[in-house]
Amino acid sequence: MIRISVIGTRAANAIEAEQAFEVGRLIAERGGVLICGGLSGVMEHAARGAKEVGGLTIGILPGYDPAQANRWIDIPISTGMTWARNVVVATSGQAVIAIGGGPGTLSEIAYAAIEGRPVIALGSWELDTDRLDSEIISASSPQEAVDRAFDRINI
Amino acid sequence: MIRISVIGTRAANAIEAEQAFEVGRLIAERGGVLICGGLSGVMEHAARGAKEVGGLTIGILPGYDPAQANRWIDIPISTGMTWARNVVVATSGQAVIAIGGGPGTLSEIAYAAIEGRPVIALGSWELDTDRLDSEIISASSPQEAVDRAFDRINI
Amino acid sequence: MIRISVIGTRAANAIEAEQAFEVGRLIAERGGVLICGGLSGVMEHAARGAKEVGGLTIGILPGYDPAQANRWIDIPISTGMTWARNVVVATSGQAVIAIGGGPGTLSEIAYAAIEGRPVIALGSWELDTDRLDSEIISASSPQEAVDRAFDRINI
Amino acid sequence: MIRISVIGTRAANAIEAEQAFEVGRLIAERGGVLICGGLSGVMEHAARGAKEVGGLTIGILPGYDPAQANRWIDIPISTGMTWARNVVVATSGQAVIAIGGGPGTLSEIAYAAIEGRPVIALGSWELDTDRLDSEIISASSPQEAVDRAFDRINI
Repeated sequence: MIRISVIGTRAANAIEAEQAFEVGRLIAERGGVLICGGLSGVMEHAARGAKEVGGLTIGILPGYDPAQANRWIDIPISTGMTWARNVVVATSGQAVIAIGGGPGTLSEIAYAAIEGRPVIALGSWELDTDRLDSEIISASSPQEAVDRAFDRINI
Repeated sequence: MIRISVIGTRAANAIEAEQAFEVGRLIAERGGVLICGGLSGVMEHAARGAKEVGGLTIGILPGYDPAQANRWIDIPISTGMTWARNVVVATSGQAVIAIGGGPGTLSEIAYAAIEGRPVIALGSWELDTDRLDSEIISASSPQEAVDRAFDRINI
Repeated sequence: MIRISVIGTRAANAIEAEQAFEVGRLIAERGGVLICGGLSGVMEHAARGAKEVGGLTIGILPGYDPAQANRWIDIPISTGMTWARNVVVATSGQAVIAIGGGPGTLSEIAYAAIEGRPVIALGSWELDTDRLDSEIISASSPQEAVDRAFDRINI
Repeated sequence: MIRISVIGTRAANAIEAEQAFEVGRLIAERGGVLICGGLSGVMEHAARGAKEVGGLTIGILPGYDPAQANRWIDIPISTGMTWARNVVVATSGQAVIAIGGGPGTLSEIAYAAIEGRPVIALGSWELDTDRLDSEIISASSPQEAVDRAFDRINI
């Protein structure tokens, strides 16, 4: 099964919410499993998109209680590791799509870069790629983001 | 989706291997998702049992490389946290079935107890339940172990 | 610097509290650094004992806030990993002294065994050492526990 | 005890190495405890600087083996959590000084921002502080970096 992580903030604005929904839907339409942090905002909208078309969604939770997951998560994974769970979200996908995002998303991009997971950014962090020692792939639409993610996984 | 964690050692003997296979198969037959540590031994035999009947298997890996997972794992989750990943294995299931097992399994039983996940033991650790502040349910066969796990989840 | 971890429950009874104090004091008198989980109960009494004689105390906290540490902790280490921090407590000492204890202490004994840290038990878990694949050294007094810990480190 | 985390890459260049040494020395001169990741590069040079003047150094290691620590570490803390240990390094200091650095350092800056630890940058990441929702304090010398760190802690 192809696995794609979608990362982004709980405080998603309307555009990010719509993008996340579309990204989730497109991942699921192409048969990908959606991995996310399981909470609200970008995580919830992406999971909702995936479920719209019958996809499978996994939420890597900061706590232990599966009830912490948003309602679109099929399989909550309990870590209890609060922010350290970001490394699990970032590295469990074969590619990572970042939508908007704050410092939590930044930590996930950093971890994806360290472990060689391709990062596709949709209105997210712009970073010094020399320091990152890894590229960040810019996408201008959910369709492009998901296409790029699948392209990179199939290389 | 019902989620059951199966825990036990990489160094499974023939009886434990057979029990793990049966437990995995029975979990999947009843529609449960199998969660395990993703490696060899009990983890692999349980996942193989689940796949025999078309179940879904999740492997919570100690490292980052999905290739670390045994071949019966559908969705490898990369933690990179080595032994600390045991807390994720132990608490992500709604019930935990322990088959045989050494100190790693012991840490998982401890974590399940802390977080209130019912533990069903099949030839595994016998512990002072006063100190554990939680019961361990003994089972004498894979069928009984899986029955007990589903019973406890449906309470 | 010699480092010894002292583990045990927050719900220490009077005897355990006194033992923890003595263990902490004796570790510090012999120049050892005390490592513990930083909270109350056995952790606090041990740290108090160490500070009584001017020792150095480190508290590996489950959360991020250093104010979570008891008042006898010199250096709080913030993990934010809740129960997963137990692996840090258990393996950062060159030996581990367990006083009483419940399931959290059990997870720490398991981790110490996995990583080959000698465990000295003072009224703590009695475990099947075949399954543990490691011995647990029984001590009947704080003095004996600390002596055994130093003996093992100096081997 | 004042605790300051120094973060930066293993692949330090000559300037970064010198800066790290100075930062470590100045922290220790002012009585601060140095916390770092315990390995080579910036971590080692900072620890060496602190020991030059008799400071206390703590290394939060990615693995379990205390021998992984550089020779200037007084107290190795074993996490076994590989990259997830970055959250421990970043949040255990009351302030964080970043010297140069790659993606690992980036993850630490993100975590420091999340948990409200002031970050002082010496030739390190320049980030969109709106997204970070936190400021990064620029310093142009080791002296300024350490002054700023102590200033922020004493607020």
